[in-house]
Amino acid sequence: MISSNTIKLINSLRIKKYRDKNRLFIIEGDKLVKEFLELNAGVNLVAGETEWLSQLPDYLLERAEQVIEVSSAELKKISSLQTPNKALAIVHMRSNKLKHESLKESLSIVLDYIQDPGNLGTIIRLAAWFGIKNIVCSLNSVDLYNPKVVQSTMGALLHVDIYYTDLDKLLPVAAEMGLPVFATTLDGDSIYKSSATGKGLILFGNESAGLPAGLLRYAGRKITIPSFGNSGFGLDSLNIASTVAVVLSEFKRSG
Amino acid sequence: MISSNTIKLINSLRIKKYRDKNRLFIIEGDKLVKEFLELNAGVNLVAGETEWLSQLPDYLLERAEQVIEVSSAELKKISSLQTPNKALAIVHMRSNKLKHESLKESLSIVLDYIQDPGNLGTIIRLAAWFGIKNIVCSLNSVDLYNPKVVQSTMGALLHVDIYYTDLDKLLPVAAEMGLPVFATTLDGDSIYKSSATGKGLILFGNESAGLPAGLLRYAGRKITIPSFGNSGFGLDSLNIASTVAVVLSEFKRSG
Repeated sequence: MISSNTIKLINSLRIKKYRDKNRLFIIEGDKLVKEFLELNAGVNLVAGETEWLSQLPDYLLERAEQVIEVSSAELKKISSLQTPNKALAIVHMRSNKLKHESLKESLSIVLDYIQDPGNLGTIIRLAAWFGIKNIVCSLNSVDLYNPKVVQSTMGALLHVDIYYTDLDKLLPVAAEMGLPVFATTLDGDSIYKSSATGKGLILFGNESAGLPAGLLRYAGRKITIPSFGNSGFGLDSLNIASTVAVVLSEFKRSG
Repeated sequence: MISSNTIKLINSLRIKKYRDKNRLFIIEGDKLVKEFLELNAGVNLVAGETEWLSQLPDYLLERAEQVIEVSSAELKKISSLQTPNKALAIVHMRSNKLKHESLKESLSIVLDYIQDPGNLGTIIRLAAWFGIKNIVCSLNSVDLYNPKVVQSTMGALLHVDIYYTDLDKLLPVAAEMGLPVFATTLDGDSIYKSSATGKGLILFGNESAGLPAGLLRYAGRKITIPSFGNSGFGLDSLNIASTVAVVLSEFKRSG
């Protein structure tokens, strides 16, 4: 049985303002909730269906500050999934304070004004796969704790540190630190001929607008995925997540 | 003014059964409708807002079999977009009959049981970018003319030939023709060490299930994108569109 206050809290956490105020966010589904418990990643409350809870080992259950048994009708009521999947949890946000030092020895992704939650989720999965530790997002990027982002990362957000900061302040500091800064654009050098390195920042811009001139001026090098197809209508760009996939692969194979 | 019969037809075309019966599908938005007219790609009917129509050159308008002026309220009524964008068109399907010969001299993508419309759309955009001429889908894959697929290709579907066929019949024929068949799996050779070629078939499987054994047995070589990250929860696979992005990039840079 779930209290009306808890229902109210869960509903409020769909909205960024209340997530930030409470420093809490929602995860859903058997696999994701188990992963957060397994990694002891700050689970505040688990609402699970009776049978699902009964199959969960005690050591996992004990990691949640609170456990509530719900019927599938109750789960449906609090879920934002079309097909609710056995469990939902409220989780404490981690405090990610960006230390510039942590960018020094590895390759990091910098995202400006990414708007689509699915894109950010896919980029986080790609970062985890390619061993990228840090993603830095501009302040106007979609919220990491947006339910659609969280669900589409499939748990990868537990393996990547994600920061939000003013890129106009970060990039000059990076330049001063001597970090290579690459910008992905449509008119740069071919990534297949670039001197990919194992450290530095790779900048990716907004889904339609790309990177603004204000940020481009900090880039030591502009890089581009060359097209092997015809030019023409509908062929002017790749999806941002596809771009990240190809660029990370290329840096990692050579870096 | 749009007739109630036209409204009925447009609504019915949201459903595959009626698309197939009428051999028609829907495209939406300023850019996409213009592209189809520009390439003279079988536009049956254009429903456009007055001002949008008035800015369209005559030679483009004449390529549509029928042009209807609509108010933005009317467009909203027939659109399936959250924010309708100036125009919608009904388009004739192309008849794509797969000729095995056409697979012979180039690299083709073979998709088994792809379910998500956004994934298929992104894969079509990737194919166009990397100069892949043919995509062959299993019969149980999501429909190319699903509105979400069409919209997410951003026009790239005009540059790639897409076929639906029984893969259990196609793959033995490909083997007989001596075409190299690559299967993307989680336990194959690293794509960075594979002998990528400029021709052959690359098989990609379903979003969660991957490729079934029945199809894998036709593959001469299994290939994998190695992970550079930690193993663990949420790190067991890449999104299918990300996989296609990395594999195509790797084949094209080396092929």
